[in-house]
Amino acid sequence: MSQDAFQYLLRLGDDRLVLGHRLSEWCGHAPILEEDIALANIALDLVGQASLLLSLAAQEEKGGRDADALAYLRDAIDYRNALIVELPKRDFAFTIARQFLFSVYSMLQAEALQRSKHQQLAGVASKMLKETRYHARHSGEWMLRLGDGTEESHARLQTAVDELWRYTGELFLPDDLDHRVAEAGLGVETATLESRWSQQVTDILTRAKIAIPEVKWMQRGGRAGQHTEHLGHMLAQMQVLQRQHPGASW
Amino acid sequence: MSQDAFQYLLRLGDDRLVLGHRLSEWCGHAPILEEDIALANIALDLVGQASLLLSLAAQEEKGGRDADALAYLRDAIDYRNALIVELPKRDFAFTIARQFLFSVYSMLQAEALQRSKHQQLAGVASKMLKETRYHARHSGEWMLRLGDGTEESHARLQTAVDELWRYTGELFLPDDLDHRVAEAGLGVETATLESRWSQQVTDILTRAKIAIPEVKWMQRGGRAGQHTEHLGHMLAQMQVLQRQHPGASW
Repeated sequence: MSQDAFQYLLRLGDDRLVLGHRLSEWCGHAPILEEDIALANIALDLVGQASLLLSLAAQEEKGGRDADALAYLRDAIDYRNALIVELPKRDFAFTIARQFLFSVYSMLQAEALQRSKHQQLAGVASKMLKETRYHARHSGEWMLRLGDGTEESHARLQTAVDELWRYTGELFLPDDLDHRVAEAGLGVETATLESRWSQQVTDILTRAKIAIPEVKWMQRGGRAGQHTEHLGHMLAQMQVLQRQHPGASW
Repeated sequence: MSQDAFQYLLRLGDDRLVLGHRLSEWCGHAPILEEDIALANIALDLVGQASLLLSLAAQEEKGGRDADALAYLRDAIDYRNALIVELPKRDFAFTIARQFLFSVYSMLQAEALQRSKHQQLAGVASKMLKETRYHARHSGEWMLRLGDGTEESHARLQTAVDELWRYTGELFLPDDLDHRVAEAGLGVETATLESRWSQQVTDILTRAKIAIPEVKWMQRGGRAGQHTEHLGHMLAQMQVLQRQHPGASW
């Protein structure tokens, strides 16, 4: 079980670490002070969640690695995040759309994980739930504002959703690990979240006048370590200091 | 008085906007998750303070500009920050040393500004004081850890303090505006903060085994809009979106 728990916690942690990092790329580059602060706050929440989840993962691994080693010394192939979070940040509409799609997922997941038999994970989940509710609300409000805003904002948001949609399937993809952790009462079967996610997302997209794309096949691979080249580039940036000076603070 | 208040609030706001931005350049690049989060939190506090102070400045100007216009649509020559905050972020020791030197200054300033006759400024000052106490403590603890750490960390911190010292004088430089706002009960005469600053800084530097540099002349110019080339580069980065698409969110 310990190996399953480790892998499952990596999935949870890596999703948030990678998305938090992508979001932090906006730091100081958002076009409105207030939004700069809001995005940075969300990024901070996500990196904070990742730090807690990776600490739990490190405990389960019992391999002497801590959360920092997991974050800074793993190669892309050992990352277990879904592909949607590693795509480059693009424009503001793309950032908001991704944040919204992921936050609704994360909120439902956190809600269920509050009942995990893994006491510490259940604790982290309630903290996550509180934060993620805010992320979903904040990004949902922006979805409405952009979707129902100017011609340009609407077009940009539609393009973003069109591009992102094929990456949403992976979030709900069942696999053996997923079954086993759900059976053990440790995790939540991700497929059970899909219909509520779909309902909440469709509601906002409809109100934002955004058409739901038809996608023939969904992208996948992240949970198994098959990542886009974007993750490698991001990790190169993120890990450069720690790899050049292991354990040092420069 | 309104023009003086405007200029004075710009000084206060710009110091924090520029330093917050410099600090946010660490987002996702600090070598320890916990410190990544801590620096991002401090950056957020500073940008938040700047946003409040620039809003007050905009009120005093009565020129139709808001805090965003002041942040994103002014040229370097119209910025009123002290030079110390605009220097590039360099290594972690430099970042910590600057944060420490500035935070002690800002803490003493906020303490005094709580008694400002400008009610809203007094309110912002108490919020600033609370935040800045934490910044000074956090960076002060790192000063001790680096100064009394390895040979390399000590050497890097000494180099940082040597480079930064000549920029500290400007923080306490009296000028006419400074006199007038102090006389009007709106601001605090910055020179009155120097001896306490010196005492607190010397205490930590001594405990960190860092020698206090001897500096023949102090750098100055920022308060009058004479900035290093670094500010221009930073603003180019920070303002690119807003300048390309005024009022838009991309």
